[in-house]
Amino acid sequence: MKICVAGLGLIGGSLAKAIKKNTDETVYGLDINRETIASALAQETIDGELTPKELGCCDMVILGLYPQATIDFINENKGYFRKGSIVIDTCGIKQSVVEAAETALEGTGVSFLGCHPMAGREFWGFAYALDNLFDRASFIMTPTEKTPAEVVEKVKGFALKIGFAGCVTATPREHDEVIAFTSQLAHVVSSAYIKSPSLFKQAGFSAGSFKDLTRVAKLNEDMWTSLFLLNREPLLFEIDHIIKALTDYRDAIRDGDSDRLHELLKEGRELKEQSIRNDVKKA
Amino acid sequence: MKICVAGLGLIGGSLAKAIKKNTDETVYGLDINRETIASALAQETIDGELTPKELGCCDMVILGLYPQATIDFINENKGYFRKGSIVIDTCGIKQSVVEAAETALEGTGVSFLGCHPMAGREFWGFAYALDNLFDRASFIMTPTEKTPAEVVEKVKGFALKIGFAGCVTATPREHDEVIAFTSQLAHVVSSAYIKSPSLFKQAGFSAGSFKDLTRVAKLNEDMWTSLFLLNREPLLFEIDHIIKALTDYRDAIRDGDSDRLHELLKEGRELKEQSIRNDVKKA
Repeated sequence: MKICVAGLGLIGGSLAKAIKKNTDETVYGLDINRETIASALAQETIDGELTPKELGCCDMVILGLYPQATIDFINENKGYFRKGSIVIDTCGIKQSVVEAAETALEGTGVSFLGCHPMAGREFWGFAYALDNLFDRASFIMTPTEKTPAEVVEKVKGFALKIGFAGCVTATPREHDEVIAFTSQLAHVVSSAYIKSPSLFKQAGFSAGSFKDLTRVAKLNEDMWTSLFLLNREPLLFEIDHIIKALTDYRDAIRDGDSDRLHELLKEGRELKEQSIRNDVKKA
Repeated sequence: MKICVAGLGLIGGSLAKAIKKNTDETVYGLDINRETIASALAQETIDGELTPKELGCCDMVILGLYPQATIDFINENKGYFRKGSIVIDTCGIKQSVVEAAETALEGTGVSFLGCHPMAGREFWGFAYALDNLFDRASFIMTPTEKTPAEVVEKVKGFALKIGFAGCVTATPREHDEVIAFTSQLAHVVSSAYIKSPSLFKQAGFSAGSFKDLTRVAKLNEDMWTSLFLLNREPLLFEIDHIIKALTDYRDAIRDGDSDRLHELLKEGRELKEQSIRNDVKKA
């Protein structure tokens, strides 16, 4: 199989490295940054460079681009993909990307499958790409009624082969709703947490909990601004919900209501324990 | 030196184990739970059991008890401590405990030093105690004008000997204000985060950020209810601050204000990076 990875950042670069490590497929790279291509060639992450016009040689094209860039790339280059080939993206939101991609590729004989590899780092760019970034990660696929079943099977086999721990499918809408909670809200809360006036008094006063709560505040604001605004409704629902929940704790503490506070904390512990049990069952 | 650890839970039990592992001191245990004492003896975590009336044989008494139990223990047993001996506690809040302890021990010739070993687990009880729980942890001491300097030096040397990575001192008030941010707020936010209606839709949709943000929701509600209510003002300040910060993000997303959202996220990233640099410098 000939594969092109377009956009060799943290995610695209790590995917290219994982393919080279785990398979014998030919991997091409495409990136607007000359240094990235030079590094990828030097590290043998890619076997060669392609221009968009040469994409017709590929059986699979993986887009490691931001949401709007993904949509633009497909619209600009849809005439170059080979009939029968598969195009997948790696964006953190799916509904808007999948709709635009399917509309653009309508009638071209090219299959699109929305994908979201569930891993990341607090660093970005090809320099931080790792061949094992996805080793314990989940690979989410969001097929629609337009996606041929054999394309889903093929991409699933491919994801498992390059090292993902498992694959799950969801509709684009389900994906966006759940990701608003598991990933986007985490980034919002972490970024809000770090803004306390107490921040620079804390050296030597932190155990693991502070580090955990603020780790992802070190985020790429260009990417996350776009991801948040493309997933407004589900994310607003989650932010409003945690503000409401925090207000419950605040009121109980303000009122010195020990029973209420105890109940709120107990509920939280039980939900966390139940969520751990569910994860173990599904793993 | 003869040392008694009163309260062999996660923290007291781990301290007893760390003393046995790293020193030749004699370690006695005191606990209201018979099984805990039996386990501690069987595992050679303690050399023997003491009753409160026998505390006079000890050079140092370490209290591994909740805040109110710490205060009660000192009040009930202040007549048994040896003149010239040192009593330290391990509570997560300091002002109320230190004030009560110093008042109780006034004129007894026993020195009290408020201490807070900065480590924990999402489990509690002697069964989870570890001899290396504190290996990369900070040991906070909160001396007052009543604490002899040589007592601080002695406890500091002891903490480093049993494996703590470093010691810091602060006033009890400073401690409580900073801990409201680094530890208590983390537990409140984590507990609030887990309460989303989206919780049980998330299997396979989580990368590290969800796990990090919700890890400490698995907390001991008896202990944390008491810690929160004994530190109301600083904790309310932090909860109100994060609610306000979250509201800023919420409004920017609701209004589709890309510039504002980008700025909020950028500020958060820069604060996190600055905080990491400060930690490295102070380490």
